[in-house]
Amino acid sequence: MRYLPGQAQQLPGHHQPLSGYQASHFKFEVSGGVATLTLDRPERKNPLTFDSYAELRDLFRALPMATDIKAVVITGAGENFCSGGDVHDIIGPLTQLDMPGLLAFTRLTGDLVKAIRACPQPVVAAVDGVCVGAGAMLALAADIRFGTARSKTAFLFTRVGLAGCDMGACALLPRVIGQGRAAELLYTGRSMGGAEGERWGFFNSLHEPDALAHAALTMARGLADGPTFAHGMTKTMLQQEWSMGVDQAIEAEAQAQAICMATNDFHRAYHAFVAKQKPVFEGD
Amino acid sequence: MRYLPGQAQQLPGHHQPLSGYQASHFKFEVSGGVATLTLDRPERKNPLTFDSYAELRDLFRALPMATDIKAVVITGAGENFCSGGDVHDIIGPLTQLDMPGLLAFTRLTGDLVKAIRACPQPVVAAVDGVCVGAGAMLALAADIRFGTARSKTAFLFTRVGLAGCDMGACALLPRVIGQGRAAELLYTGRSMGGAEGERWGFFNSLHEPDALAHAALTMARGLADGPTFAHGMTKTMLQQEWSMGVDQAIEAEAQAQAICMATNDFHRAYHAFVAKQKPVFEGD
Amino acid sequence: MRYLPGQAQQLPGHHQPLSGYQASHFKFEVSGGVATLTLDRPERKNPLTFDSYAELRDLFRALPMATDIKAVVITGAGENFCSGGDVHDIIGPLTQLDMPGLLAFTRLTGDLVKAIRACPQPVVAAVDGVCVGAGAMLALAADIRFGTARSKTAFLFTRVGLAGCDMGACALLPRVIGQGRAAELLYTGRSMGGAEGERWGFFNSLHEPDALAHAALTMARGLADGPTFAHGMTKTMLQQEWSMGVDQAIEAEAQAQAICMATNDFHRAYHAFVAKQKPVFEGD
Repeated sequence: MRYLPGQAQQLPGHHQPLSGYQASHFKFEVSGGVATLTLDRPERKNPLTFDSYAELRDLFRALPMATDIKAVVITGAGENFCSGGDVHDIIGPLTQLDMPGLLAFTRLTGDLVKAIRACPQPVVAAVDGVCVGAGAMLALAADIRFGTARSKTAFLFTRVGLAGCDMGACALLPRVIGQGRAAELLYTGRSMGGAEGERWGFFNSLHEPDALAHAALTMARGLADGPTFAHGMTKTMLQQEWSMGVDQAIEAEAQAQAICMATNDFHRAYHAFVAKQKPVFEGD
Repeated sequence: MRYLPGQAQQLPGHHQPLSGYQASHFKFEVSGGVATLTLDRPERKNPLTFDSYAELRDLFRALPMATDIKAVVITGAGENFCSGGDVHDIIGPLTQLDMPGLLAFTRLTGDLVKAIRACPQPVVAAVDGVCVGAGAMLALAADIRFGTARSKTAFLFTRVGLAGCDMGACALLPRVIGQGRAAELLYTGRSMGGAEGERWGFFNSLHEPDALAHAALTMARGLADGPTFAHGMTKTMLQQEWSMGVDQAIEAEAQAQAICMATNDFHRAYHAFVAKQKPVFEGD
Repeated sequence: MRYLPGQAQQLPGHHQPLSGYQASHFKFEVSGGVATLTLDRPERKNPLTFDSYAELRDLFRALPMATDIKAVVITGAGENFCSGGDVHDIIGPLTQLDMPGLLAFTRLTGDLVKAIRACPQPVVAAVDGVCVGAGAMLALAADIRFGTARSKTAFLFTRVGLAGCDMGACALLPRVIGQGRAAELLYTGRSMGGAEGERWGFFNSLHEPDALAHAALTMARGLADGPTFAHGMTKTMLQQEWSMGVDQAIEAEAQAQAICMATNDFHRAYHAFVAKQKPVFEGD
């Protein structure tokens, strides 16, 4: 029996395009399969609020069904990425909450990171200026991070009397920049500069401020033009293998890649190669 | 129901101050909430002995109850950190032991690392000169490492016919400097220089030899003046999430941070911010 | 009862020397306890075929019983390491396979990585020129990697419409170069240059092309002259502790190192030290 890739089928009610989505608490644009989310209160360096947390969470949760979106860019307006949870809008109210209320809040913020990691679209963060607190976690939750030399990233939870374990920081940051460097940033809350961030592997590359948005969009477009079903599997497995043993991870990849070998995109690539053409991927 | 932080209460018999502790096998000083442990046999580059292993283990095991100690510096006297287990004092006797005796020894040394990782106080290692064998593991067990350009760190277990898996090295070192670099150091036992160690993330920063102690103490004082309950939670979670999946780690952090939001330090930080003052943390 | 190391004994039928092995699909030489595997179709940059995958897997599976081999070098002929699975020899036939056939193939390639990680001999990859696809995974499966400035390493599975999760890449690469850098390489398939690879920890060091083979062999010879039983334990534990918690890893190392303290090599090292001689290790 030979495997025959056929017409991709949508499950009934599965496909829910997001291209026309009108966001309330940030800017949302779709172009060429790339959704750009711009945190957009530049006069306050783009803080997060209860509402924007919830809307971001809901948006990323909708992305697995949004087959019109192939990659995501997340950025901030006006030369800053994000100032995190606002002291007046978030921290003040938190001091009034009981324990179930506090846990509901920390789960809300954690659910945003879970949703970013769970959607199949690769996420590119474009980070200029201030990138702190929950904003630094948004950047860390992305797959690929572009920065600027002047960017300042700080996991400053400790400055408000809290622990460095916020939204997954103690799990994610050590795997990106190393355990020792992560410990220092999380205990002290100090700023990591752009050059330092690139040297440590937090930023994939640095760009001039006025070239940053274009660089991030170019990267996202390139990914959106690629084999997007396979990209989603790459993302799934980077997450899935996080705490597996090596042998288990290898078996998991044997299964995952066999699935990808049954896609049309794999066949398209082969036939394009044979015909000495560039493959046109369609994501199925 | 609103959560009301109250007066911190000590469990009966819980608080056991260590400020007056007289150490037998190393130097022990407490100042401003910072305990400084100095390995102190400089004429032999501060080797470890059965007795100093055991006393170090017992001391770190006492730290969770020592609420007068908020941070720890570990260092060596006389321009060297630590020469590890002494060949005459340790290795000779080990060649005479039966298997239960050997395991008792390897568990003793491993228990020291477990105790360093388990105490809530952040540990800063100040490393100059020789830092080898079990000494390198002491440094690796710390949260933050300061070094000097002339420091020489070597996991030289292989030089005495042993494996690189000693006191947790095969688990800890790869997460600090990367799997490939760790493999080379553990297989060959070669020295890692100071600049190399900083470049790889083993050292958080390098300092002039005569500025090293001050730099480490300044870092520790800064941590001791911070929200120390929250710092302890950061340390717990860095350990706790080591082998969790990402989603599990995020839920674990939601719970851990909700606990920290119920502390007085969180409220102090908020009220200080509103009053445009610097918060004074008290660790409860 | 005192532990007395005795004469090392071979289990009946256990020792199966490989020194005289005649490889069919690559070059295989043994000298001084070091086996050198050379992928040897330089006119096509040393691609892998179904046959060479299978023979490599079988060879690495035989290594745990090959007590005449103490270390392995893997390299490529003619200024390139390996061009990966050939489009005509591998990818074309894969497009004709049904799902069980596809999974049989991905398991074959994964089994090769499992076998490289499971054999007790340290593996040194010497990488010049092209090192792509499954070739990049061969290099990544090694313990230590030496490169050249002109080497080009690419995990280019995405270029043929596949996912980055191939042969364990999503598990191994993030632990070697960091999660963020690994994600970029796996999503984009772009080339990592030699200098970049050294800076990120993929390469342990860079060498001039005409000095590369000698450097890799010198490293392997040094390891082959060391305490090879202990080296095998180091390798086992680097694998074994991959997804353990810290405390579990420390207990696992206490047991593993106690075993090594019962070897003759440990005693040899001690007696050599006392006699102010260089120890001669025999691997038992």
